[in-house]
Amino acid sequence: MKRGLLALSTLSLALGSAWAAKIAIYPYDGASVLAGQRFDLRVEASELQGSPSTYRITLDGQPLSGFQQTSQGPGQAEWTLRDTFIRVGEHTLEVSVTDGTGESKRSAKWVARANPRLPRAPKNIILFIGDGMGWNTLNAARIIAKGFNPQNGMPSGNLEIETGYGGMATVTNSSFDSFIVDSANSASSIMTGQKVQVNALNVYPSNLKDTLAYPRIETLAEMMKRVRGASIGVVTTTFGTDATPAMVNAHTRRRSDYQGIADQYFGRGGFGIPLDVMLFGGSRDFIPQSNPGSRRKDNTDWIAESQKLGYTFVSNRTELMAAQPSDKLFGLFNLDNFPSYLDRAVWKRPEMLGSFTDMPYLWEMTQKAVETLSKNDKGFFLMVEAGMVDKYEHPLDWQRGLWDVLELDRTVQWAKNYAAQNPDTLVIVTADHAHSISVFGGYDYSKQGRQGVGVYQDAKFPTYGDRRDTNGFPLPETARGIAVGFGATPDYCETYRGREVYKDPTISDGKGGYVANPEVCKEPGAFLRVGNLDPASAQGVHTADPMPLFAFGTGSQLFNGLIDQTEIFFRMAQALGLNPYLEKP
Amino acid sequence: MKRGLLALSTLSLALGSAWAAKIAIYPYDGASVLAGQRFDLRVEASELQGSPSTYRITLDGQPLSGFQQTSQGPGQAEWTLRDTFIRVGEHTLEVSVTDGTGESKRSAKWVARANPRLPRAPKNIILFIGDGMGWNTLNAARIIAKGFNPQNGMPSGNLEIETGYGGMATVTNSSFDSFIVDSANSASSIMTGQKVQVNALNVYPSNLKDTLAYPRIETLAEMMKRVRGASIGVVTTTFGTDATPAMVNAHTRRRSDYQGIADQYFGRGGFGIPLDVMLFGGSRDFIPQSNPGSRRKDNTDWIAESQKLGYTFVSNRTELMAAQPSDKLFGLFNLDNFPSYLDRAVWKRPEMLGSFTDMPYLWEMTQKAVETLSKNDKGFFLMVEAGMVDKYEHPLDWQRGLWDVLELDRTVQWAKNYAAQNPDTLVIVTADHAHSISVFGGYDYSKQGRQGVGVYQDAKFPTYGDRRDTNGFPLPETARGIAVGFGATPDYCETYRGREVYKDPTISDGKGGYVANPEVCKEPGAFLRVGNLDPASAQGVHTADPMPLFAFGTGSQLFNGLIDQTEIFFRMAQALGLNPYLEKP
Repeated sequence: MKRGLLALSTLSLALGSAWAAKIAIYPYDGASVLAGQRFDLRVEASELQGSPSTYRITLDGQPLSGFQQTSQGPGQAEWTLRDTFIRVGEHTLEVSVTDGTGESKRSAKWVARANPRLPRAPKNIILFIGDGMGWNTLNAARIIAKGFNPQNGMPSGNLEIETGYGGMATVTNSSFDSFIVDSANSASSIMTGQKVQVNALNVYPSNLKDTLAYPRIETLAEMMKRVRGASIGVVTTTFGTDATPAMVNAHTRRRSDYQGIADQYFGRGGFGIPLDVMLFGGSRDFIPQSNPGSRRKDNTDWIAESQKLGYTFVSNRTELMAAQPSDKLFGLFNLDNFPSYLDRAVWKRPEMLGSFTDMPYLWEMTQKAVETLSKNDKGFFLMVEAGMVDKYEHPLDWQRGLWDVLELDRTVQWAKNYAAQNPDTLVIVTADHAHSISVFGGYDYSKQGRQGVGVYQDAKFPTYGDRRDTNGFPLPETARGIAVGFGATPDYCETYRGREVYKDPTISDGKGGYVANPEVCKEPGAFLRVGNLDPASAQGVHTADPMPLFAFGTGSQLFNGLIDQTEIFFRMAQALGLNPYLEKP
Repeated sequence: MKRGLLALSTLSLALGSAWAAKIAIYPYDGASVLAGQRFDLRVEASELQGSPSTYRITLDGQPLSGFQQTSQGPGQAEWTLRDTFIRVGEHTLEVSVTDGTGESKRSAKWVARANPRLPRAPKNIILFIGDGMGWNTLNAARIIAKGFNPQNGMPSGNLEIETGYGGMATVTNSSFDSFIVDSANSASSIMTGQKVQVNALNVYPSNLKDTLAYPRIETLAEMMKRVRGASIGVVTTTFGTDATPAMVNAHTRRRSDYQGIADQYFGRGGFGIPLDVMLFGGSRDFIPQSNPGSRRKDNTDWIAESQKLGYTFVSNRTELMAAQPSDKLFGLFNLDNFPSYLDRAVWKRPEMLGSFTDMPYLWEMTQKAVETLSKNDKGFFLMVEAGMVDKYEHPLDWQRGLWDVLELDRTVQWAKNYAAQNPDTLVIVTADHAHSISVFGGYDYSKQGRQGVGVYQDAKFPTYGDRRDTNGFPLPETARGIAVGFGATPDYCETYRGREVYKDPTISDGKGGYVANPEVCKEPGAFLRVGNLDPASAQGVHTADPMPLFAFGTGSQLFNGLIDQTEIFFRMAQALGLNPYLEKP
């Protein structure tokens, strides 16, 4: 409230007048954090009349000091207190800023949670993310893998993900600035318990230009390593600096800061806490700019550097399986994303594999990662992503996407067995967001186009599993399949069939929009399905639809009911009995 | 195996030769029933060479007698044992039929379950079915009703359905003859624990011509009434003889046997167990054929007959609220389906309401039904359906569908409070199947067509709830809405807007197919979305996507995990401690 101008300033505030400075506080009003979880406290004032003459920041009525004051431009002032934390309980931060026209105030209420140590607590967490694996996607994968007894219509079984769990939940999500998430802010919610902006990784909003300097929020994995000395790792089938793997220890406003994310993986930047195990694609972000395919803008060679830092480096499946790492392992198996499971295991088309013909399965990477991380008796956190599920749901190539769920399922089977053998391990399987996928009937592959679709009694039963690949997975080629549709699409041509050589569903129209890919429209039975997304959309999009969560092993009983994604963070911390404030090493 | 022709008959079986008769057994091989649950045991032989000279049917090796032998035609013979049951445990039925060419055999294994009486068991069940309310539909209704805090992106709350539950599950479904369900066989699975054919209600398959004579399976409600003397009732917003309300005590191969279903409601036909409370639309199936709008083919007047049988009859909201029924209540509030909640409460367009302007809300019917049923101290079973959710998802009119979920939610709120006051009551809320609905972004109603769609950060936050109706529900008209798509559609025109006077998405092309309704295509911003269903489809279809289940009150803890729909039947029986064999009155 402006000093001495009570009535007028009330009016001005009501009208949104520029007379009152705007104040933003991070952590945001209503934030829940873990007591002792580190964050960068930031206050930003804008629309100031001149420079602020005085400011006052109090926590629970007590002045808070140590802020660095900056200004990003005219009428702006910022106060930053990096690397701080709050104790257990409810807190109020109050900010008062006085400029040429008077005083402006704002406050934020926070809650810091603590965790009683449970009688039986895990020290390790393996977190599986099926990227884009909403309930409908997991359901579709089960139908393909398990099917039904055609004699009585009963389901023939559940996926490994869905069997022997100690907890099951349904998860919803949202962003700080939108109710739809991308993989970056969704991953951040899981790892920090807070909402961040679309495309942001474990940082609060700010007016900074340097996206890598945004106010940071400590992740669960960073806390486990900082406080307990645990080892932390990442396994994925995408390029390594993609948004989901970056959840573990990266901090940036912009998920496409690939070089910065790669550097943070080795402890350069962010909170300075490096990963111990990294197994993924995307070597392009770890090799010097002079190397073919590099995406870096400097000459850092993390392959060479990593080995000086004590990492064992591997570049293909053969090397991975032979490796005997001490406690740090770094593997780059592709220049970019892995090809899908079907490409690697079944179709093996050179157009899809390129020169990368010796790539590990997700379960092999996971097993090796756990072998390495578990050498640390202080515990470990491992995030394993089936990242290509999402990558192929986007272009509506559900065959590739769903078979990657089956690769994840095989991996979860291994991890469940590990947790059964090692009761100090909690295994969680969930998704970061859904896609608009739906299974609405059967498909008769002896027909073409819309005529092959059978609904209700004509859906009959799919025949997947009549033939199997070398891993025992059903082959996509069968007499009767499933009819799959997407609720949100660009213009594209539908054939209801997979294809061994991937094709984009759309091509640029040269005017900022996208049209159906004519190469697909030429295929037998193809028909144009006019889209419902903005014509500037090249592919399908994430949805607000709910997601599954299954938990196994010690602490799994904490994961149940309908929960917001931020709650995954708090329940993981609760399972661990993690109290970063009390546990300071 | 053919007698004396071992080698040859083995060959013939392998080739599927017509030399061996075909034998079908119901209950089907692999069936689970409740010990003491009644069913009609039926054996059907076909492709017989002449009449069967001998037959032998044994249960666990002991000959079973009392069968009525019939023949539906040449080469066919049937043996029926109506109204039988099996005791606890595993059982094997073996059938041997000898015809002119030798002996044919078939067997079926069954399991009959029993239920230990729990320390705390409910005596009443209120089962809510949101017809077509898959996880995505419930999620969309929550987004409309509760939304998000635009200051930090956190969800602003859960629906009543999603709050205070004692158990939460995810439910899958399938049919006896297809992996996609309709509302009839889905409802039957919930009420009998077994899979039946698409469009069938609580009956096994058979070769009978009379659809009302098909082999019956006793429902949970019928058991509660037969064994315990409980009262049973149905409340829905659809016409009363529709598939979902018919789940409680109707038995027919064909859900469109409306007259026969109406008669079974009063105990004429089926297992002869009448409903005590019926509150719904669809008077056309209960009035004599001479009356305008009647769908009956006889002169039965169930309005008059019901009053002779002791039912209090009401025909509008005013009469319902004033009624002081003893223990039987019959209400018909519309000739056919109710208009949607939005039609009744908000838009009130005469084109939609017709002459039915004094209709009760779902929560009023439910409250009156429970008041009536609960006069029976032996317990009650009440099925309450929000039936118009599905009816409006089919034509892609998601506004009407989702607001009917909100009407259901208000009703569940009342029932939860009832169960809290009456701890002998278990409340279950689930769906019978899903639709291909997905929420994939926000919609800016100041724009039109595809240009109004905002995805990711452009989705922002919906503004529903800025204005509310007299029941406190958000109005559909708001600045920012949700962008909703369907994964399976006919050709139709999309506007992203609701309309106060309903329009079909398609019209007949006069050649057995359907095309987009030109009346919709003329609306501002409308664009043709080419469908992906068979061109003979007039509307959207059911999907195989998973569904939510929330349970409240005593016994609710039994409902958790990922379960097939048949398991709802067994867990309800388990909660009740229902043992129809032991409890015979």
